[in-house]
Amino acid sequence: MKDAYARAGVDIDAGNLAVQRYREVTEAWSHPDQLGSLGGFSGLFRLPGDSKRALVGSTDGVGTKLLVAAALRRYDTVGADLVNHCVNDILVTGADPLFFLDYLAVGKLDPEVAALVVSGVHAACRANGCALLGGETAEMPGVYREDHFDLAGTIVGLVELDAMPDPNRVQPGDAIVGLPAVGLHTNGYTLARALIAEDEYGVPFGDTTYGEALLAPHPSYLEPVRAIRRVAEVKTMAHVTGGGLLDNVPRTLPEHVTAVFEQTRWDVPPIMAELVRRGELAHEERYRTLNMGVGYTLIVPIAGVDAALRAAPGARVVGFVQPRSDGEPRLIVRPART
Amino acid sequence: MKDAYARAGVDIDAGNLAVQRYREVTEAWSHPDQLGSLGGFSGLFRLPGDSKRALVGSTDGVGTKLLVAAALRRYDTVGADLVNHCVNDILVTGADPLFFLDYLAVGKLDPEVAALVVSGVHAACRANGCALLGGETAEMPGVYREDHFDLAGTIVGLVELDAMPDPNRVQPGDAIVGLPAVGLHTNGYTLARALIAEDEYGVPFGDTTYGEALLAPHPSYLEPVRAIRRVAEVKTMAHVTGGGLLDNVPRTLPEHVTAVFEQTRWDVPPIMAELVRRGELAHEERYRTLNMGVGYTLIVPIAGVDAALRAAPGARVVGFVQPRSDGEPRLIVRPART
Repeated sequence: MKDAYARAGVDIDAGNLAVQRYREVTEAWSHPDQLGSLGGFSGLFRLPGDSKRALVGSTDGVGTKLLVAAALRRYDTVGADLVNHCVNDILVTGADPLFFLDYLAVGKLDPEVAALVVSGVHAACRANGCALLGGETAEMPGVYREDHFDLAGTIVGLVELDAMPDPNRVQPGDAIVGLPAVGLHTNGYTLARALIAEDEYGVPFGDTTYGEALLAPHPSYLEPVRAIRRVAEVKTMAHVTGGGLLDNVPRTLPEHVTAVFEQTRWDVPPIMAELVRRGELAHEERYRTLNMGVGYTLIVPIAGVDAALRAAPGARVVGFVQPRSDGEPRLIVRPART
Repeated sequence: MKDAYARAGVDIDAGNLAVQRYREVTEAWSHPDQLGSLGGFSGLFRLPGDSKRALVGSTDGVGTKLLVAAALRRYDTVGADLVNHCVNDILVTGADPLFFLDYLAVGKLDPEVAALVVSGVHAACRANGCALLGGETAEMPGVYREDHFDLAGTIVGLVELDAMPDPNRVQPGDAIVGLPAVGLHTNGYTLARALIAEDEYGVPFGDTTYGEALLAPHPSYLEPVRAIRRVAEVKTMAHVTGGGLLDNVPRTLPEHVTAVFEQTRWDVPPIMAELVRRGELAHEERYRTLNMGVGYTLIVPIAGVDAALRAAPGARVVGFVQPRSDGEPRLIVRPART
């Protein structure tokens, strides 16, 4: 039986197959200065003539959250979604962002809408101390519907190789610190749009509306992560994007441990609880399609936990690391009693 | 009266207005390490802790050439279009490419098609000695039609600041060396698609077909430009992309000179002559929408011309630089007698 996400039109199996095929078509050659990536969140490239530093690059898009923004005619927030997503992706390596470039593609160019989008990109770059180095606006009648657009971008950062997190230091007993998600961030929107119809976007939902709750911008974790790294050892980090906790956290864990999340330890944002209810999402699907309230994770030794939590408002211990035997899962989420 | 390009659905005025609005919404802040760009082909960013080098970044897309490729079910060539376009854009600053990231967005993901696209990107990166550092594949039902896709990418290069071309050295009497274009490269396809219908793509055209002539890949000028720079002073360069000779060449010229192109000095590729004929394109429109056979220009002192032409097969003197008075155009193309 197809799960709700596939029924909504996103084929995760096709995505995994494409990734497998990419590996095959690119494995014959890689550049000698290309370094192994850390969990695949971004790519690393040795800075020529500098043995201590590497450049880190990552490209991402806003995805179908754009359709929610377009339905609400809100064009100034998607820039923050894009930039903050990219900042967080390279942050997993410990990189500081240097610069960003955006790609805006439209069916028919409306200069005022485009300027709102770019002003949002620029403001988010500024907030992250990152240059907006350039970009491209493409008008492509025939590829995009007249009133549709796509927004993607690329970030480049710099990392000191000695200061990179090292997943091999992760041990049973370490704590998993989670930074709170404010909503769906930039993932799960094809599912969300199938479960919450456009004509409901204006309907009150708690102290907001369905539309506003869906559109809540993806936050940057740059400042809380910097603050935690100043006071505590951080062994590895993960940005909880497409694939949720289940796909993202294990990517930066060694084989011999299991990450155990206890769902009683954090709050699930109301919009996500609503999607779970409406879609009757099974446990696995919740934690693979949605972030369920944890936007970013850091693995910290027990001795560093108090300092870490004091350094970053909203940070919580969301779980711990335990030993793993062959065949056991690499990540477990213990559900809240309901 | 609207020109042929606007009639085909691309609004250059809207594009210029968008650029103007971008300038307004971004002018309040720029990063202190951001350097002025050279003609806007790419952005420069001072490498932290290194006074001699800068990073250069550029983002671009393949544009509606994708629709020609899709009609011919040829998915392995658009990667070269994209990568080579980006390589040439940063080459104008004298930069060597370091790495590339691609963005592929589809309505419905076909892993085999996606793998063909990415294998083309990878092969072109390899040919340019540039790492394929990463990328993003987005499946977005609702934004793209099911059988359509978009492909964009970002390149990052490194330049020695001392070795950058310096447009301020350009003087009357300098020669303009042109590198030959093999076709439309990645510009003018919305117009070309309006003038040559899809059902003609299989029709013979010279020793090829209309479809193949339209799809001829955008070449990389990395090797010929390196070869010329090894033997001759190169004062400034331009990549002839959207906007043609008229928009691109003046961007790297000082105010006090006019670039004079003499169209008798190079060959116009047959596919471009055909578009001019079918669209009854006026002089201005030809040289603003199409490259008309000159893909890249280098301004070289007369003393360096012979060495430059010997270093790069196909290179020709396509014009010269003359003094310019206020109010005179910054670029003139003297047409061939017909």
